[in-house]
Amino acid sequence: MSLEGRISINLATTRGAWGFAEAVDGCLRHGITAISPWRDQVHAIGLKEAVRIVQTNGLKLTGHCRGGMFPADTLEGRQANIEDNKRAIDEAAAMGADCLVLVVGGLPGSSKDIGEARKQVLEGIAAILPYAQAQSMPLAIEPLHPMYAADRACVNTLRQALDICEQLGEGVGVAIDVYHVWWDPELEAQIARAGKMGAILAHHICDWLVPTRDLLLDRGMMGDGVIDLPRIRGWIEAAGFHGAQEVEIFSQDNWWKRPGDETLATCIERFNTVCTR
Amino acid sequence: MSLEGRISINLATTRGAWGFAEAVDGCLRHGITAISPWRDQVHAIGLKEAVRIVQTNGLKLTGHCRGGMFPADTLEGRQANIEDNKRAIDEAAAMGADCLVLVVGGLPGSSKDIGEARKQVLEGIAAILPYAQAQSMPLAIEPLHPMYAADRACVNTLRQALDICEQLGEGVGVAIDVYHVWWDPELEAQIARAGKMGAILAHHICDWLVPTRDLLLDRGMMGDGVIDLPRIRGWIEAAGFHGAQEVEIFSQDNWWKRPGDETLATCIERFNTVCTR
Repeated sequence: MSLEGRISINLATTRGAWGFAEAVDGCLRHGITAISPWRDQVHAIGLKEAVRIVQTNGLKLTGHCRGGMFPADTLEGRQANIEDNKRAIDEAAAMGADCLVLVVGGLPGSSKDIGEARKQVLEGIAAILPYAQAQSMPLAIEPLHPMYAADRACVNTLRQALDICEQLGEGVGVAIDVYHVWWDPELEAQIARAGKMGAILAHHICDWLVPTRDLLLDRGMMGDGVIDLPRIRGWIEAAGFHGAQEVEIFSQDNWWKRPGDETLATCIERFNTVCTR
Repeated sequence: MSLEGRISINLATTRGAWGFAEAVDGCLRHGITAISPWRDQVHAIGLKEAVRIVQTNGLKLTGHCRGGMFPADTLEGRQANIEDNKRAIDEAAAMGADCLVLVVGGLPGSSKDIGEARKQVLEGIAAILPYAQAQSMPLAIEPLHPMYAADRACVNTLRQALDICEQLGEGVGVAIDVYHVWWDPELEAQIARAGKMGAILAHHICDWLVPTRDLLLDRGMMGDGVIDLPRIRGWIEAAGFHGAQEVEIFSQDNWWKRPGDETLATCIERFNTVCTR
Protein backbone atom coordinates (compact mmCIF):
# COMPACT_ATOMS: atom_id res chain seq x y z
CA MET A 1 0.00 0.00 0.00
CA SER A 2 1.21 3.52 -0.77
CA LEU A 3 2.68 5.47 2.11
CA GLU A 4 1.05 8.64 0.79
CA GLY A 5 -0.92 10.38 3.50
CA ARG A 6 -0.23 7.60 6.00
CA ILE A 7 3.26 8.28 7.32
CA SER A 8 5.20 11.47 7.90
CA ILE A 9 8.77 11.85 9.07
CA ASN A 10 9.51 14.42 11.74
CA LEU A 11 12.98 15.56 10.76
CA ALA A 12 14.20 15.17 14.35
CA THR A 13 14.22 11.45 13.55
CA THR A 14 17.09 11.77 11.06
CA ARG A 15 18.74 14.73 12.79
CA GLY A 16 21.97 12.83 13.42
CA ALA A 17 22.48 12.14 9.71
CA TRP A 18 20.75 14.81 7.69
CA GLY A 19 19.82 18.47 7.43
CA PHE A 20 16.60 19.68 5.79
CA ALA A 21 17.47 19.14 2.13
CA GLU A 22 19.15 15.75 2.62
CA ALA A 23 16.24 14.58 4.73
CA VAL A 24 13.73 15.57 2.04
CA ASP A 25 15.77 13.74 -0.60
CA GLY A 26 15.92 10.73 1.69
CA CYS A 27 12.18 10.73 2.33
CA LEU A 28 11.42 10.98 -1.39
CA ARG A 29 13.81 8.09 -2.13
CA HIS A 30 11.77 5.99 0.29
CA GLY A 31 8.40 7.07 -1.09
CA ILE A 32 7.57 9.37 1.81
CA THR A 33 6.00 12.70 0.84
CA ALA A 34 5.12 14.17 4.23
CA ILE A 35 7.54 15.68 6.72
CA SER A 36 7.59 17.86 9.81
CA PRO A 37 10.72 20.04 10.10
CA TRP A 38 12.30 21.85 13.05
CA ARG A 39 12.94 25.56 13.03
CA ASP A 40 16.72 25.24 13.36
CA GLN A 41 16.75 22.97 10.31
CA VAL A 42 14.74 25.48 8.32
CA HIS A 43 16.93 28.36 9.50
CA ALA A 44 20.09 26.48 8.54
CA ILE A 45 19.00 26.27 4.90
CA GLY A 46 16.99 29.50 4.91
CA LEU A 47 13.20 29.79 4.89
CA LYS A 48 13.06 30.76 1.21
CA GLU A 49 14.99 27.67 0.12
CA ALA A 50 12.93 25.48 2.45
CA VAL A 51 9.72 26.81 0.91
CA ARG A 52 11.14 26.20 -2.57
CA ILE A 53 12.00 22.59 -1.72
CA VAL A 54 8.58 21.99 -0.18
CA GLN A 55 6.71 23.46 -3.16
CA THR A 56 8.90 21.94 -5.87
CA ASN A 57 8.37 18.48 -4.45
CA GLY A 58 4.74 18.90 -3.49
CA LEU A 59 5.56 17.93 0.10
CA LYS A 60 2.93 17.82 2.80
CA LEU A 61 3.97 19.29 6.16
CA THR A 62 2.14 17.57 9.01
CA GLY A 63 3.46 20.23 11.34
CA HIS A 64 6.21 22.74 12.00
CA CYS A 65 8.28 22.26 15.18
CA ARG A 66 8.00 24.28 17.17
CA GLY A 67 6.50 27.29 18.89
CA GLY A 68 5.77 27.61 22.57
CA MET A 69 8.21 28.15 25.44
CA PHE A 70 6.03 30.99 26.74
CA PRO A 71 6.99 31.41 30.42
CA ALA A 72 9.74 33.81 31.42
CA ASP A 73 10.66 35.55 34.65
CA THR A 74 10.25 39.04 33.19
CA LEU A 75 7.53 40.73 31.16
CA GLU A 76 10.14 41.54 28.52
CA GLY A 77 11.08 37.89 28.33
CA ARG A 78 7.48 36.85 27.87
CA GLN A 79 6.97 39.48 25.16
CA ALA A 80 10.10 38.29 23.35
CA ASN A 81 8.74 34.74 23.46
CA ILE A 82 5.46 35.91 21.94
CA GLU A 83 7.30 37.69 19.13
CA ASP A 84 9.36 34.57 18.47
CA ASN A 85 6.17 32.55 18.23
CA LYS A 86 4.86 34.96 15.61
CA ARG A 87 7.98 34.28 13.54
CA ALA A 88 7.32 30.55 13.90
CA ILE A 89 3.76 31.12 12.66
CA ASP A 90 5.15 33.04 9.67
CA GLU A 91 7.45 30.14 8.81
CA ALA A 92 4.74 27.53 9.22
CA ALA A 93 2.41 29.54 6.99
CA ALA A 94 5.10 30.13 4.35
CA MET A 95 5.75 26.39 4.14
CA GLY A 96 2.05 25.54 4.22
CA ALA A 97 2.26 23.40 7.35
CA ASP A 98 -0.88 21.76 8.76
CA CYS A 99 -0.19 23.28 12.17
CA LEU A 100 2.41 24.90 14.39
CA VAL A 101 3.28 22.50 17.20
CA LEU A 102 3.53 24.17 20.62
CA VAL A 103 5.83 22.85 23.32
CA VAL A 104 4.57 25.31 25.87
CA GLY A 105 7.52 25.72 28.22
CA GLY A 106 8.19 24.93 31.88
CA LEU A 107 8.97 26.86 35.05
CA PRO A 108 10.28 30.37 34.36
CA GLY A 109 13.70 31.21 35.82
CA SER A 110 14.13 29.79 39.32
CA SER A 111 10.40 29.72 40.01
CA LYS A 112 8.75 26.75 41.69
CA ASP A 113 5.26 28.00 40.87
CA ILE A 114 3.91 25.66 38.22
CA GLY A 115 0.48 27.27 38.54
CA GLU A 116 1.97 30.60 37.50
CA ALA A 117 3.81 28.93 34.61
CA ARG A 118 0.50 27.46 33.43
CA LYS A 119 -1.14 30.87 33.64
CA GLN A 120 1.66 32.35 31.53
CA VAL A 121 1.20 29.59 28.96
CA LEU A 122 -2.51 30.27 28.65
CA GLU A 123 -1.85 33.99 28.25
CA GLY A 124 0.92 33.35 25.73
CA ILE A 125 -1.23 31.16 23.49
CA ALA A 126 -4.08 33.68 23.76
CA ALA A 127 -1.66 36.43 22.72
CA ILE A 128 -0.53 34.69 19.51
CA LEU A 129 -3.89 33.22 18.56
CA PRO A 130 -5.22 36.20 16.55
CA TYR A 131 -1.95 36.34 14.62
CA ALA A 132 -2.18 32.62 13.86
CA GLN A 133 -5.83 32.88 12.86
CA ALA A 134 -5.06 35.74 10.48
CA GLN A 135 -2.74 33.35 8.66
CA SER A 136 -5.11 30.38 9.05
CA MET A 137 -2.44 28.52 10.98
CA PRO A 138 -3.81 26.09 13.59
CA LEU A 139 -1.89 25.94 16.87
CA ALA A 140 -1.32 22.39 18.14
CA ILE A 141 -0.69 22.19 21.87
CA GLU A 142 1.42 19.11 22.52
CA PRO A 143 1.00 17.80 26.05
CA LEU A 144 4.43 16.58 27.11
CA HIS A 145 5.21 13.72 29.47
CA PRO A 146 5.13 14.81 33.13
CA MET A 147 8.88 14.19 33.38
CA TYR A 148 9.29 17.41 31.33
CA ALA A 149 7.01 19.53 33.53
CA ALA A 150 9.86 21.57 35.00
CA ASP A 151 11.99 22.34 31.98
CA ARG A 152 10.00 21.86 28.77
CA ALA A 153 6.24 21.87 29.11
CA CYS A 154 3.89 22.39 32.05
CA VAL A 155 0.98 21.07 29.97
CA ASN A 156 1.26 17.39 30.79
CA THR A 157 -2.00 15.63 30.00
CA LEU A 158 -4.40 15.60 27.09
CA ARG A 159 -7.19 16.64 29.48
CA GLN A 160 -5.23 19.74 30.46
CA ALA A 161 -4.47 20.63 26.82
CA LEU A 162 -8.11 20.23 25.83
CA ASP A 163 -9.20 22.40 28.75
CA ILE A 164 -7.00 25.14 27.28
CA CYS A 165 -8.51 24.57 23.82
CA GLU A 166 -11.99 24.96 25.29
CA GLN A 167 -11.00 28.21 26.98
CA LEU A 168 -9.44 29.69 23.85
CA GLY A 169 -11.85 28.46 21.19
CA GLU A 170 -11.26 28.25 17.44
CA GLY A 171 -7.75 27.88 16.08
CA VAL A 172 -6.23 25.81 18.90
CA GLY A 173 -6.05 22.01 18.98
CA VAL A 174 -3.71 19.26 20.11
CA ALA A 175 -0.84 17.16 18.83
CA ILE A 176 -1.10 13.71 20.35
CA ASP A 177 2.33 12.11 20.74
CA VAL A 178 2.07 8.59 22.08
CA TYR A 179 5.40 8.94 23.91
CA HIS A 180 3.95 11.61 26.15
CA VAL A 181 0.47 10.25 26.78
CA TRP A 182 0.53 6.45 26.47
CA TRP A 183 0.51 5.94 30.26
CA ASP A 184 -2.56 8.14 30.90
CA PRO A 185 -5.50 6.22 32.44
CA GLU A 186 -7.80 8.81 30.82
CA LEU A 187 -6.26 8.55 27.36
CA GLU A 188 -9.10 6.79 25.56
CA ALA A 189 -11.73 9.13 27.04
CA GLN A 190 -9.72 12.27 26.33
CA ILE A 191 -9.00 11.22 22.73
CA ALA A 192 -12.74 10.76 22.24
CA ARG A 193 -13.31 14.20 23.77
CA ALA A 194 -10.69 15.69 21.43
CA GLY A 195 -12.47 14.11 18.50
CA LYS A 196 -15.83 15.62 19.48
CA MET A 197 -14.11 19.00 19.73
CA GLY A 198 -12.53 18.55 16.28
CA ALA A 199 -9.25 19.30 18.02
CA ILE A 200 -6.89 16.54 16.84
CA LEU A 201 -4.31 18.19 14.59
CA ALA A 202 -1.45 15.68 14.61
CA HIS A 203 -0.51 12.18 15.74
CA HIS A 204 3.13 11.51 16.58
CA ILE A 205 4.57 8.04 17.09
CA CYS A 206 7.69 6.35 18.46
CA ASP A 207 8.04 3.95 21.41
CA TRP A 208 8.80 3.92 25.14
CA LEU A 209 11.88 1.82 25.88
CA VAL A 210 12.36 -0.22 29.05
CA PRO A 211 14.74 0.76 30.46
CA THR A 212 14.81 4.39 29.29
CA ARG A 213 18.38 5.61 29.76
CA ASP A 214 17.92 9.33 29.17
CA LEU A 215 14.89 11.48 29.88
CA LEU A 216 15.10 13.37 26.60
CA LEU A 217 17.09 11.49 23.98
CA ASP A 218 16.29 7.81 24.39
CA ARG A 219 13.04 7.33 22.53
CA GLY A 220 12.53 4.05 20.78
CA MET A 221 11.67 2.92 17.26
CA MET A 222 8.07 1.69 16.96
CA GLY A 223 7.97 -1.93 18.10
CA ASP A 224 11.03 -1.73 20.33
CA GLY A 225 9.11 -0.60 23.41
CA VAL A 226 5.90 -1.07 25.34
CA ILE A 227 3.40 1.27 23.70
CA ASP A 228 0.35 -0.39 22.17
CA LEU A 229 0.48 1.72 19.01
CA PRO A 230 -2.39 0.11 17.05
CA ARG A 231 -4.73 0.43 20.02
CA ILE A 232 -4.03 4.16 20.41
CA ARG A 233 -4.26 4.69 16.63
CA GLY A 234 -7.61 2.94 16.75
CA TRP A 235 -8.87 5.40 19.36
CA ILE A 236 -7.57 8.32 17.30
CA GLU A 237 -9.24 7.10 14.10
CA ALA A 238 -12.45 6.39 15.99
CA ALA A 239 -12.29 10.03 17.06
CA GLY A 240 -12.26 11.04 13.41
CA PHE A 241 -8.57 11.79 12.76
CA HIS A 242 -7.19 9.98 9.73
CA GLY A 243 -4.10 12.10 9.04
CA ALA A 244 -0.61 10.70 8.77
CA GLN A 245 1.21 9.12 11.69
CA GLU A 246 4.31 11.30 12.17
CA VAL A 247 7.42 9.44 13.29
CA GLU A 248 9.38 11.50 15.82
CA ILE A 249 12.32 9.74 17.46
CA PHE A 250 14.93 11.48 19.62
CA SER A 251 17.64 8.85 19.94
CA GLN A 252 21.11 10.22 20.51
CA ASP A 253 22.89 6.92 21.11
CA ASN A 254 21.08 4.76 18.58
CA TRP A 255 19.09 6.06 15.60
CA TRP A 256 20.90 9.39 15.39
CA LYS A 257 24.15 7.47 14.94
CA ARG A 258 22.87 5.42 12.00
CA PRO A 259 22.67 6.33 8.31
CA GLY A 260 19.46 8.18 7.51
CA ASP A 261 18.46 5.60 4.90
CA GLU A 262 18.65 2.82 7.46
CA THR A 263 16.52 4.82 9.89
CA LEU A 264 13.89 5.57 7.22
CA ALA A 265 13.78 2.00 5.97
CA THR A 266 13.24 0.82 9.55
CA CYS A 267 10.51 3.43 10.13
CA ILE A 268 8.65 2.18 7.07
CA GLU A 269 9.05 -1.50 7.92
CA ARG A 270 7.88 -0.94 11.49
CA PHE A 271 5.06 1.33 10.35
CA ASN A 272 3.77 -1.47 8.15
CA THR A 273 4.16 -4.22 10.75
CA VAL A 274 3.59 -2.52 14.10
CA CYS A 275 1.51 0.65 13.80
CA THR A 276 -1.82 -0.55 12.51
CA ARG A 277 -3.84 -3.69 13.06
CA MET B 1 11.09 22.69 67.79
CA SER B 2 11.19 18.95 68.42
CA LEU B 3 11.29 16.72 65.37
CA GLU B 4 8.96 14.25 67.11
CA GLY B 5 6.03 13.39 64.91
CA ARG B 6 7.11 15.84 62.23
CA ILE B 7 9.82 14.06 60.26
CA SER B 8 10.40 10.42 59.40
CA ILE B 9 13.32 8.89 57.55
CA ASN B 10 12.59 6.34 54.89
CA LEU B 11 15.57 4.03 55.17
CA ALA B 12 16.12 4.12 51.42
CA THR B 13 17.57 7.57 52.06
CA THR B 14 20.58 6.20 53.95
CA ARG B 15 20.74 2.92 52.03
CA GLY B 16 24.21 3.64 50.71
CA ALA B 17 25.66 3.98 54.20
CA TRP B 18 23.57 1.97 56.63
CA GLY B 19 21.54 -1.16 57.19
CA PHE B 20 18.49 -1.25 59.47
CA ALA B 21 20.21 -1.18 62.86
CA GLU B 22 22.81 1.45 61.95
CA ALA B 23 20.11 3.64 60.41
CA VAL B 24 18.01 3.45 63.58
CA ASP B 25 21.04 4.37 65.70
CA GLY B 26 21.75 7.25 63.33
CA CYS B 27 18.19 8.55 63.45
CA LEU B 28 18.12 8.41 67.25
CA ARG B 29 21.46 10.29 67.41
CA HIS B 30 19.82 13.04 65.37
CA GLY B 31 16.63 13.15 67.43
CA ILE B 32 14.51 11.36 64.83
CA THR B 33 12.13 8.74 66.21
CA ALA B 34 10.14 7.79 63.10
CA ILE B 35 11.34 5.62 60.23
CA SER B 36 10.04 3.67 57.28
CA PRO B 37 12.10 0.57 56.44
CA TRP B 38 12.35 -1.56 53.31
CA ARG B 39 11.69 -5.27 53.32
CA ASP B 40 15.19 -6.25 52.24
CA GLN B 41 16.61 -4.24 55.14
CA VAL B 42 14.30 -5.99 57.57
CA HIS B 43 15.09 -9.40 56.08
CA ALA B 44 18.82 -8.74 56.34
CA ILE B 45 18.62 -8.30 60.11
CA GLY B 46 15.68 -10.64 60.61
CA LEU B 47 12.09 -9.63 61.40
CA LYS B 48 12.37 -10.64 65.07
CA GLU B 49 15.41 -8.44 65.64
CA ALA B 50 13.81 -5.58 63.70
CA VAL B 51 10.70 -5.79 65.91
CA ARG B 52 12.91 -5.83 69.01
CA ILE B 53 14.77 -2.69 67.86
CA VAL B 54 11.52 -0.90 67.03
CA GLN B 55 9.90 -1.77 70.35
CA THR B 56 12.97 -1.18 72.53
CA ASN B 57 13.39 2.30 71.11
CA GLY B 58 9.70 3.19 70.90
CA LEU B 59 10.08 3.96 67.19
CA LYS B 60 7.15 5.03 65.08
CA LEU B 61 6.95 3.43 61.62
CA THR B 62 5.28 5.77 59.15
CA GLY B 63 5.14 2.92 56.68
CA HIS B 64 6.66 -0.36 55.58
CA CYS B 65 8.09 -0.50 52.05
CA ARG B 66 6.75 -2.22 50.19
CA GLY B 67 4.01 -4.47 48.95
CA GLY B 68 2.48 -4.39 45.49
CA MET B 69 3.96 -5.62 42.20
CA PHE B 70 0.74 -7.51 41.48
CA PRO B 71 0.72 -8.09 37.69
CA ALA B 72 2.23 -11.24 36.24
CA ASP B 73 1.84 -13.09 32.97
CA THR B 74 0.57 -16.27 34.59
CA LEU B 75 -2.08 -16.99 37.19
CA GLU B 76 0.55 -18.74 39.27
CA GLY B 77 2.71 -15.63 39.15
CA ARG B 78 -0.17 -13.46 40.29
CA GLN B 79 -0.98 -15.85 43.12
CA ALA B 80 2.66 -15.88 44.22
CA ASN B 81 2.60 -12.08 44.28
CA ILE B 82 -0.51 -12.11 46.46
CA GLU B 83 1.14 -14.52 48.90
CA ASP B 84 4.23 -12.32 49.01
CA ASN B 85 2.04 -9.33 49.83
CA LYS B 86 0.54 -11.24 52.74
CA ARG B 87 4.05 -11.75 54.13
CA ALA B 88 4.63 -8.01 53.77
CA ILE B 89 1.42 -7.37 55.72
CA ASP B 90 2.63 -9.78 58.44
CA GLU B 91 5.91 -7.85 58.71
CA ALA B 92 4.24 -4.45 58.76
CA ALA B 93 1.86 -5.64 61.48
CA ALA B 94 4.65 -7.20 63.55
CA MET B 95 6.57 -3.93 63.51
CA GLY B 96 3.43 -1.86 64.13
CA ALA B 97 3.75 0.19 60.93
CA ASP B 98 1.14 2.85 60.14
CA CYS B 99 0.57 1.32 56.72
CA LEU B 100 1.97 -1.01 54.07
CA VAL B 101 3.02 1.05 51.07
CA LEU B 102 1.99 -0.47 47.73
CA VAL B 103 4.02 0.08 44.57
CA VAL B 104 1.51 -1.72 42.42
CA GLY B 105 3.62 -3.01 39.53
CA GLY B 106 3.75 -2.36 35.80
CA LEU B 107 3.18 -4.34 32.62
CA PRO B 108 3.32 -8.10 33.15
CA GLY B 109 5.89 -9.99 31.07
CA SER B 110 6.07 -8.68 27.51
CA SER B 111 2.52 -7.32 27.59
CA LYS B 112 1.70 -3.90 26.17
CA ASP B 113 -1.78 -3.94 27.70
CA ILE B 114 -1.70 -1.37 30.49
CA GLY B 115 -5.46 -1.69 30.90
CA GLU B 116 -5.02 -5.37 31.74
CA ALA B 117 -2.19 -4.51 34.15
CA ARG B 118 -4.49 -2.07 35.92
CA LYS B 119 -7.20 -4.70 36.16
CA GLN B 120 -4.70 -7.13 37.72
CA VAL B 121 -3.66 -4.46 40.22
CA LEU B 122 -7.25 -3.85 41.29
CA GLU B 123 -7.82 -7.58 41.68
CA GLY B 124 -4.56 -8.01 43.56
CA ILE B 125 -5.34 -5.32 46.12
CA ALA B 126 -8.87 -6.70 46.51
CA ALA B 127 -7.38 -10.14 47.14
CA ILE B 128 -5.11 -9.02 49.99
CA LEU B 129 -7.50 -6.53 51.56
CA PRO B 130 -9.34 -8.95 53.87
CA TYR B 131 -6.00 -10.26 55.12
CA ALA B 132 -4.78 -6.71 55.78
CA GLN B 133 -8.02 -5.76 57.51
CA ALA B 134 -7.81 -8.80 59.77
CA GLN B 135 -4.50 -7.41 61.01
CA SER B 136 -5.75 -3.79 61.00
CA MET B 137 -3.03 -2.89 58.52
CA PRO B 138 -4.00 -0.05 56.14
CA LEU B 139 -2.84 -0.43 52.54
CA ALA B 140 -1.36 2.75 51.06
CA ILE B 141 -1.46 2.87 47.27
CA GLU B 142 1.40 5.06 46.11
CA PRO B 143 0.75 6.58 42.69
CA LEU B 144 4.11 6.59 40.92
CA HIS B 145 5.32 9.10 38.36
CA PRO B 146 4.14 8.23 34.83
CA MET B 147 7.75 7.55 33.82
CA TYR B 148 7.45 4.31 35.85
CA ALA B 149 4.19 3.17 34.24
CA ALA B 150 5.81 0.34 32.29
CA ASP B 151 8.11 -1.22 34.84
CA ARG B 152 7.09 -0.19 38.37
CA ALA B 153 3.57 1.08 38.78
CA CYS B 154 0.64 1.49 36.41
CA VAL B 155 -1.17 3.64 38.97
CA ASN B 156 0.19 7.04 38.00
CA THR B 157 -2.05 9.77 39.36
CA LEU B 158 -3.68 10.51 42.68
CA ARG B 159 -7.07 10.56 40.94
CA GLN B 160 -6.52 7.03 39.70
CA ALA B 161 -5.39 5.80 43.14
CA LEU B 162 -8.41 7.38 44.82
CA ASP B 163 -10.73 5.82 42.25
CA ILE B 164 -9.35 2.44 43.36
CA CYS B 165 -9.84 3.38 47.01
CA GLU B 166 -13.47 4.23 46.31
CA GLN B 167 -14.01 0.93 44.56
CA LEU B 168 -12.45 -1.13 47.34
CA GLY B 169 -13.70 0.77 50.40
CA GLU B 170 -12.35 0.63 53.96
CA GLY B 171 -8.72 -0.27 54.57
CA VAL B 172 -7.18 1.25 51.43
CA GLY B 173 -5.75 4.75 51.18
CA VAL B 174 -2.88 6.57 49.51
CA ALA B 175 0.73 7.52 50.12
CA ILE B 176 1.36 10.92 48.55
CA ASP B 177 4.97 11.26 47.42
CA VAL B 178 5.67 14.73 46.05
CA TYR B 179 8.23 13.32 43.59
CA HIS B 180 5.55 11.38 41.78
CA VAL B 181 2.69 13.87 41.82
CA TRP B 182 4.11 17.41 41.99
CA TRP B 183 3.48 18.03 38.25
CA ASP B 184 -0.20 17.03 38.31
CA PRO B 185 -2.56 19.88 37.35
CA GLU B 186 -5.23 18.18 39.48
CA LEU B 187 -3.03 17.78 42.55
CA GLU B 188 -4.68 20.32 44.83
CA ALA B 189 -8.18 19.08 43.98
CA GLN B 190 -7.26 15.43 44.38
CA ILE B 191 -5.52 16.03 47.73
CA ALA B 192 -8.71 17.72 48.93
CA ARG B 193 -10.70 14.74 47.68
CA ALA B 194 -8.35 12.36 49.48
CA GLY B 195 -8.87 14.36 52.66
CA LYS B 196 -12.64 14.11 52.43
CA MET B 197 -12.26 10.36 51.94
CA GLY B 198 -9.97 10.12 54.99
CA ALA B 199 -7.56 8.36 52.65
CA ILE B 200 -4.22 10.10 53.24
CA LEU B 201 -1.97 7.58 54.99
CA ALA B 202 1.51 8.97 54.32
CA HIS B 203 3.34 11.98 52.90
CA HIS B 204 6.74 11.40 51.32
CA ILE B 205 9.15 14.19 50.41
CA CYS B 206 12.32 14.78 48.38
CA ASP B 207 12.86 17.02 45.35
CA TRP B 208 12.83 16.92 41.53
CA LEU B 209 16.22 17.86 40.11
CA VAL B 210 16.72 19.74 36.84
CA PRO B 211 18.30 18.06 35.03
CA THR B 212 17.35 14.60 36.28
CA ARG B 213 20.11 12.24 35.16
CA ASP B 214 18.55 8.90 35.96
CA LEU B 215 14.89 7.93 35.93
CA LEU B 216 15.11 5.95 39.17
CA LEU B 217 18.10 6.93 41.27
CA ASP B 218 18.54 10.69 40.90
CA ARG B 219 16.07 12.18 43.36
CA GLY B 220 17.08 15.38 45.07
CA MET B 221 17.37 16.60 48.64
CA MET B 222 14.57 18.97 49.62
CA GLY B 223 15.47 22.44 48.39
CA ASP B 224 17.77 21.30 45.59
CA GLY B 225 15.00 21.02 43.01
CA VAL B 226 11.83 22.62 41.74
CA ILE B 227 9.05 21.20 43.94
CA ASP B 228 7.12 23.75 45.99
CA LEU B 229 7.15 21.59 49.13
CA PRO B 230 5.45 24.02 51.57
CA ARG B 231 2.60 24.61 49.13
CA ILE B 232 1.90 20.89 48.74
CA ARG B 233 2.27 20.35 52.52
CA GLY B 234 -0.24 23.13 53.00
CA TRP B 235 -2.75 21.33 50.78
CA ILE B 236 -2.13 18.07 52.66
CA GLU B 237 -2.61 19.67 56.08
CA ALA B 238 -5.70 21.51 54.83
CA ALA B 239 -7.01 18.07 53.86
CA GLY B 240 -6.58 16.97 57.48
CA PHE B 241 -3.33 14.99 57.42
CA HIS B 242 -0.84 16.12 60.05
CA GLY B 243 1.41 13.06 60.17
CA ALA B 244 5.17 13.16 59.70
CA GLN B 245 6.78 14.13 56.40
CA GLU B 246 8.78 11.06 55.38
CA VAL B 247 12.06 11.78 53.61
CA GLU B 248 12.64 9.26 50.82
CA ILE B 249 15.62 9.98 48.56
CA PHE B 250 16.98 7.53 45.97
CA SER B 251 20.31 9.09 45.03
CA GLN B 252 22.91 6.65 43.83
CA ASP B 253 25.56 9.17 42.77
CA ASN B 254 25.13 11.72 45.54
CA TRP B 255 23.47 11.06 48.89
CA TRP B 256 24.02 7.31 48.84
CA LYS B 257 27.74 7.98 48.59
CA ARG B 258 27.85 10.24 51.65
CA PRO B 259 28.11 9.32 55.33
CA GLY B 260 24.68 8.65 56.83
CA ASP B 261 25.18 11.31 59.50
CA GLU B 262 25.78 13.96 56.85
CA THR B 263 22.67 12.91 54.97
CA LEU B 264 20.53 12.98 58.11
CA ALA B 265 21.89 16.35 59.25
CA THR B 266 21.08 17.76 55.82
CA CYS B 267 17.58 16.25 55.86
CA ILE B 268 16.90 17.94 59.21
CA GLU B 269 18.34 21.29 58.16
CA ARG B 270 16.36 21.30 54.92
CA PHE B 271 13.24 20.08 56.69
CA ASN B 272 13.45 23.07 59.00
CA THR B 273 14.21 25.62 56.29
CA VAL B 274 12.45 24.34 53.16
CA CYS B 275 9.53 22.05 53.98
CA THR B 276 7.14 24.27 55.89
CA ARG B 277 6.24 27.93 55.66
